[in-house]
Amino acid sequence: MNPIRITVWGENVHEQRHELVRRLYPKGMHACIADGLSEEGDFQVRTATLQEPEHGLSERTLAETDVLLWWGHAAHGEVRDEVVERVRKRVWEGMGLIVLHSGHYSKIFKLLMGTSCSLTWREAGEKERLWVCNPGHPIVQGIDRYFELPHTEMYGEPFAIPTPDEQIFISWFEGGEVFRSGCTWRRGNGRIFYFRPGHESYPIYHDPNVRQVLKNACRWARPEGIWIDSCPNIPVEEAPEPITAQGETIHLPGEEGFR
Amino acid sequence: MNPIRITVWGENVHEQRHELVRRLYPKGMHACIADGLSEEGDFQVRTATLQEPEHGLSERTLAETDVLLWWGHAAHGEVRDEVVERVRKRVWEGMGLIVLHSGHYSKIFKLLMGTSCSLTWREAGEKERLWVCNPGHPIVQGIDRYFELPHTEMYGEPFAIPTPDEQIFISWFEGGEVFRSGCTWRRGNGRIFYFRPGHESYPIYHDPNVRQVLKNACRWARPEGIWIDSCPNIPVEEAPEPITAQGETIHLPGEEGFR
Amino acid sequence: MNPIRITVWGENVHEQRHELVRRLYPKGMHACIADGLSEEGDFQVRTATLQEPEHGLSERTLAETDVLLWWGHAAHGEVRDEVVERVRKRVWEGMGLIVLHSGHYSKIFKLLMGTSCSLTWREAGEKERLWVCNPGHPIVQGIDRYFELPHTEMYGEPFAIPTPDEQIFISWFEGGEVFRSGCTWRRGNGRIFYFRPGHESYPIYHDPNVRQVLKNACRWARPEGIWIDSCPNIPVEEAPEPITAQGETIHLPGEEGFR
Amino acid sequence: MNPIRITVWGENVHEQRHELVRRLYPKGMHACIADGLSEEGDFQVRTATLQEPEHGLSERTLAETDVLLWWGHAAHGEVRDEVVERVRKRVWEGMGLIVLHSGHYSKIFKLLMGTSCSLTWREAGEKERLWVCNPGHPIVQGIDRYFELPHTEMYGEPFAIPTPDEQIFISWFEGGEVFRSGCTWRRGNGRIFYFRPGHESYPIYHDPNVRQVLKNACRWARPEGIWIDSCPNIPVEEAPEPITAQGETIHLPGEEGFR
Repeated sequence: MNPIRITVWGENVHEQRHELVRRLYPKGMHACIADGLSEEGDFQVRTATLQEPEHGLSERTLAETDVLLWWGHAAHGEVRDEVVERVRKRVWEGMGLIVLHSGHYSKIFKLLMGTSCSLTWREAGEKERLWVCNPGHPIVQGIDRYFELPHTEMYGEPFAIPTPDEQIFISWFEGGEVFRSGCTWRRGNGRIFYFRPGHESYPIYHDPNVRQVLKNACRWARPEGIWIDSCPNIPVEEAPEPITAQGETIHLPGEEGFR
Repeated sequence: MNPIRITVWGENVHEQRHELVRRLYPKGMHACIADGLSEEGDFQVRTATLQEPEHGLSERTLAETDVLLWWGHAAHGEVRDEVVERVRKRVWEGMGLIVLHSGHYSKIFKLLMGTSCSLTWREAGEKERLWVCNPGHPIVQGIDRYFELPHTEMYGEPFAIPTPDEQIFISWFEGGEVFRSGCTWRRGNGRIFYFRPGHESYPIYHDPNVRQVLKNACRWARPEGIWIDSCPNIPVEEAPEPITAQGETIHLPGEEGFR
Repeated sequence: MNPIRITVWGENVHEQRHELVRRLYPKGMHACIADGLSEEGDFQVRTATLQEPEHGLSERTLAETDVLLWWGHAAHGEVRDEVVERVRKRVWEGMGLIVLHSGHYSKIFKLLMGTSCSLTWREAGEKERLWVCNPGHPIVQGIDRYFELPHTEMYGEPFAIPTPDEQIFISWFEGGEVFRSGCTWRRGNGRIFYFRPGHESYPIYHDPNVRQVLKNACRWARPEGIWIDSCPNIPVEEAPEPITAQGETIHLPGEEGFR
Repeated sequence: MNPIRITVWGENVHEQRHELVRRLYPKGMHACIADGLSEEGDFQVRTATLQEPEHGLSERTLAETDVLLWWGHAAHGEVRDEVVERVRKRVWEGMGLIVLHSGHYSKIFKLLMGTSCSLTWREAGEKERLWVCNPGHPIVQGIDRYFELPHTEMYGEPFAIPTPDEQIFISWFEGGEVFRSGCTWRRGNGRIFYFRPGHESYPIYHDPNVRQVLKNACRWARPEGIWIDSCPNIPVEEAPEPITAQGETIHLPGEEGFR
């Protein structure tokens, strides 16, 4: 098997502003996530951040990425639309995408879902217990029936998403809420996994279970096939069955379709 | 039952430019579609076009619309983003949306699907036969096992959409292609129906079967419930289970979440 | 609108054996559920039980039923296969089916799902809080963000079901588990709603929120269209396009397909 | 990577009765299918037939099978229920299942779908063209935009199945019908692929495109995770959150749940 080429994208804003976040993630959250993934021998991991040119997501970098992880929170609005569009096209082609925590409100996630992706929330350092909904799923290999995070920000239902293809985790919160914490979808050929844990004021990405899930998810999300779609005109003479053109037309010969 | 309030949106461009289209649809395609729907006694039908202020889709008009039909082809790019966003929010709330033919490439459809919505096509006036995939579905009541359109533009697979919730029609084309011609999805509380027939150089919207499907689809797509979602903070003191806030926080009290 | 014809099926076993259950449901659980539904003016409600001939579910009764509610627990194995088959066919035609609590292991539910429908469980009288996953869905109209049941049997994930079409409720349990407590599917033209609450040692079906959900679910599950499917041979001379039979055949003329 | 262990199950009835089928498949259809798959170096392929003890599908054989292919037509009713149940459990655990052609009416497929699986049909040796609905899907790697079979039995819509997870192929027939010829679903952890081609009076399983699809489908359907589910009681003292049992109970301590 070829290595899996992974890019961890980090907004890298709260790490600069909050002493607390800097203490937990001295090299940035993206670096911590990348470190965890690099424990796998066949993973080739790099990072990219908002502050880099093109947010570190050039055409070339994306073309060489099998799976992209996305962490953003305070600066969703600063991500340039053309970079988001580039990521979206690459997902359609087949690149896997793992959206983390507050990334539920990122431009890329909302564009791929087609819904508002809203939820309820509370930052009280309460306990979260993530239940496995299907112990046979590749994303939960090595995880017990559930795992706990002692201090988390709460996200609660309703979570305004299209029905997931697969329900991987559901969370129980100490304060009384529940949330669909692990969900999968497909858009084009890209596999998408939303994974809730990750608030920046807790050491979530140091947690061994969280790290295991992310490793599994990268394997699950790697491309199985690539397709760059288009909207080709099939000329009359190339129709599989012989036909003759009839009637008047709106389009001129050789013209591309309207967009 | 209350009447169903329907708005037929038409781009109204080809009707101005092409003598052929003007001949088939002298009052515009939107007017012809609206006329068909108005045959139902409990439908209140109005039209809106690209050329009107706010494209005829003000907040108020949308608030008073149960089901919106969308016909566009040559001028998708001219539809203003804030109007598209307004339509999208209203779909999330519960408004039904029926997207017609070349509307597969409209901004609103692509935004709700999250995919490219590409396909293959050929304008040769060939025969199309639409097969019913579930004779018990409300959208096909009054339709036989299939119906035919003698002259149509061909759309062929691959159609780059997320898997539909329900497959309503699949088309057979004289030139040898097939296409998923009737598909449903849900985004938020809005029901969405894509219906392929409708090329402007043929009298498709005068066809009795097409008119019957559109009537059925309006009944099917009417809102069953409305929800205006948001992303509310649930303060610690309003948690269903008594908890005490622990640890440091990123958010300030009373602050809205980041977007 | 025509009235909605509802049949509440009850196993009626624990009511006979357990003093506790008899005290909570002196006329049987089915009667209590039927009483709740009868509060709606346009509902025509009858009951049927395991002990009646054909378990009270004759061809005629089913033909006159728009929505069937199913409560069973101790005697799933005693339900005769031909009655189950009859119910299944009627669901395919369009009859709605609401499966309650321990009905997750009923023959009819397992047959319609195609999965094992297993779960984890604990009978400790603990608190359950059911969260609404989409406040705009017709099944939750009149329900707040959540509702609580003070004493319930716990059901926990993993719940071995196919991905639901819609997630309506998710439960939070005092003992720490979560569960997909309200789920919808479609099989043929029948709408199916699984609703978790209902353990017989608690007065669940006297609860106003539970009663409201069941009323809503009956409206949601009523048939929108009916189709009695078959596997018809289309003779060569009835093909939509003119063709000539070629080659040898396995089937004899006029023969039905193999089953 | 480990080899993929494949079992091709064949009914092996028409091969005995029809001179035509024997001529096309002198060693049986199952043997021809197995020969095609054996061209892959990492596939370990065996066959099993209706006539063998336990239809060749012992507990041990199934335990050693990653992907099972199923060909049946004339003798669906002769397949013993306990063997079907065994296959179903193994699919739930994670074994892949590929159902061929007339297998749409096999006991195992109908049980996993939960629907009638009916369709329309015609045996006239007409041409079929299978269109790829997503060129990036692993099942269609190596296949062009479409492929043709010069002589086939026609299957037409409506095909009474639950909405597929993914639409892989749709067929165009010379006589004017269409059909969802390649569909995927998941039941438990098992991946299921229905593939239409295969009528026994034509040399379908000698066709290079059909063989390529079957090879791809075996790779796609191999287990990614295994789970043998059950319905465990979680005793009060093992609840993740400390609780005390309250109220009366229906179940006795240590008792299994009712089935």
